[in-house]
Amino acid sequence: MLKGHQSWIFKSKPTILGSAAVGGPFEANGALADDFDILHEDLWLGQDSYEKAEKVLLEHACERAIQKSKVKKEDINFFLSGDLMNQIISSNFAARTLGIPFLGVFGACSSSMEGLALAAQLIESNSAKYTLSAASSHNAAAERQFRYPTDYGVQRPPTAQWTVTGAGAVVLGAHGNGPKVTSATIGKVVDMGISDPSNFGAAMAPAAVDTIEAHFRDFNINASHYDLIATGDLGKLGHELANTLLKKHGIKMPHRIFTDCGLLIYKDEQHTFCGGSGCGCSATVTYGHLLNRMRKGELSRILVVATGALMSPISYQQKESIPCIAHAVSIEM
Amino acid sequence: MLKGHQSWIFKSKPTILGSAAVGGPFEANGALADDFDILHEDLWLGQDSYEKAEKVLLEHACERAIQKSKVKKEDINFFLSGDLMNQIISSNFAARTLGIPFLGVFGACSSSMEGLALAAQLIESNSAKYTLSAASSHNAAAERQFRYPTDYGVQRPPTAQWTVTGAGAVVLGAHGNGPKVTSATIGKVVDMGISDPSNFGAAMAPAAVDTIEAHFRDFNINASHYDLIATGDLGKLGHELANTLLKKHGIKMPHRIFTDCGLLIYKDEQHTFCGGSGCGCSATVTYGHLLNRMRKGELSRILVVATGALMSPISYQQKESIPCIAHAVSIEM
Repeated sequence: MLKGHQSWIFKSKPTILGSAAVGGPFEANGALADDFDILHEDLWLGQDSYEKAEKVLLEHACERAIQKSKVKKEDINFFLSGDLMNQIISSNFAARTLGIPFLGVFGACSSSMEGLALAAQLIESNSAKYTLSAASSHNAAAERQFRYPTDYGVQRPPTAQWTVTGAGAVVLGAHGNGPKVTSATIGKVVDMGISDPSNFGAAMAPAAVDTIEAHFRDFNINASHYDLIATGDLGKLGHELANTLLKKHGIKMPHRIFTDCGLLIYKDEQHTFCGGSGCGCSATVTYGHLLNRMRKGELSRILVVATGALMSPISYQQKESIPCIAHAVSIEM
Repeated sequence: MLKGHQSWIFKSKPTILGSAAVGGPFEANGALADDFDILHEDLWLGQDSYEKAEKVLLEHACERAIQKSKVKKEDINFFLSGDLMNQIISSNFAARTLGIPFLGVFGACSSSMEGLALAAQLIESNSAKYTLSAASSHNAAAERQFRYPTDYGVQRPPTAQWTVTGAGAVVLGAHGNGPKVTSATIGKVVDMGISDPSNFGAAMAPAAVDTIEAHFRDFNINASHYDLIATGDLGKLGHELANTLLKKHGIKMPHRIFTDCGLLIYKDEQHTFCGGSGCGCSATVTYGHLLNRMRKGELSRILVVATGALMSPISYQQKESIPCIAHAVSIEM
């Protein structure tokens, strides 16, 4: 049901019946390794291209989430998925494997929460009995599409983030035990004129703040409503900028509750510069680490604000700045 | 509300309050020129790239649809849009211009009906007061991304279709006068092993038939329920193949009601070989021509089955076949 101008309240509280996070070798050495269901030692996952490897990551996440949910695959009405690849091929090919009616979404790295918001909305409105929502990214596939093939060994600037090789998936249903999806806020496109594809964090921070502000306004709440508010992949610079902008807008955000999935996923000694990024960043951290913390009773109410940089290499070459967006979803235990 | 396994019935009948179709010079010489709201003589629309021209087409369609709907832009809760460009940049940049909370969708040329189905579902479930749904494509932008730049003058094979330069948009609301969106069926990915990107029609025909079959099954109806059933962009070959497959599956489909947007949009003397294609094909033909025929009383119940080829140039180069999908939406006067 619509709440305010751009939010949905899910009174029936759609339940996350199963969730899964799958990662690659770099994530296996990361700070949240214990929260992954499957960690692959091989960046290629036995495939002959990085793009096919990403598809397999996504399929593994979906299959594991379905298995854990104990819902039969044939009973899932809709599969919502998005990724960073041109024409979201990882999602399309995973949808072919799964055989579930498919709604492709695209919001760059915000696709994870765009999919979850819609998947919950479909359950809430009795438009589905069960939905599957997922998102993925692969470091080497994303780097060669958006910047340079990793084989070139191009030196990364200090503002750069590390695209997560990973996929996360959840199965939602109307009843059952598990974390509940309680609301969502759909973001507007915000573009402050930044055009550097190696500084997505700074570009996306204003969009994250805009959506957080809209969420608080639509529900008439403030940050204290949540135990934790995590943006998707602002990274170090973007997180600092978001803090500055929140202060400027008069929004109180205690440091202990405000974090970013890109800041959580890797260890300092992994030298990622500004942290993790990619659809797989918010998807694996949320569907692995954060949901695990909720199930352990460490968190009872969280807001995940997945951020996306809606550019393409062509728009960058044509000297366009980077339009950004953020979608927020609240989850309660 | 869910109907059967993969369909939604919209009992509240969300209303199309305004619709618009915008085209380019080739469409201005086409069979449906009179049904376009705006026809541009300049393929570049005054921009310095074809990609930027596509964005302008989409913006024009959205602005005209909003204007005709008499709904204030600020009152529209969500904008749902998709296109063929990598990372759907046409939609992203149009969303930046419009400033409406944005849900990006991707289903290749089926994006038009994926967006309309979701836009109607949001109205039906009181998750939005007003929604805007749109889709676009640009011949020269699509050709250079998926095949060859048109400047090369590469000879097209006889199975080829002509990507429509055009955009279509609709504004939906819960009340008011106008055609009503009454149901939708979300398709599964179907892949019969075809890998030729110059023969999308044949690749997509099985997906169209699968969705039509699912629609009839979920609603327990047959083709006679409709005055017209139009696929999105199967073109000449795909349409013939769909007829053959329907017969094989025992589905009666009278010739006088079964057509394809790609067969309607151009004149024979335009030598497009197999007809029109692209997100802009089903979007302009449906939101221009077909809705006009409904408003004139010539049609009272139609089903639009937009088809999409979910490949990318990379998946083609990596020797993958083409996964296809089709989403169906019924509109009644």
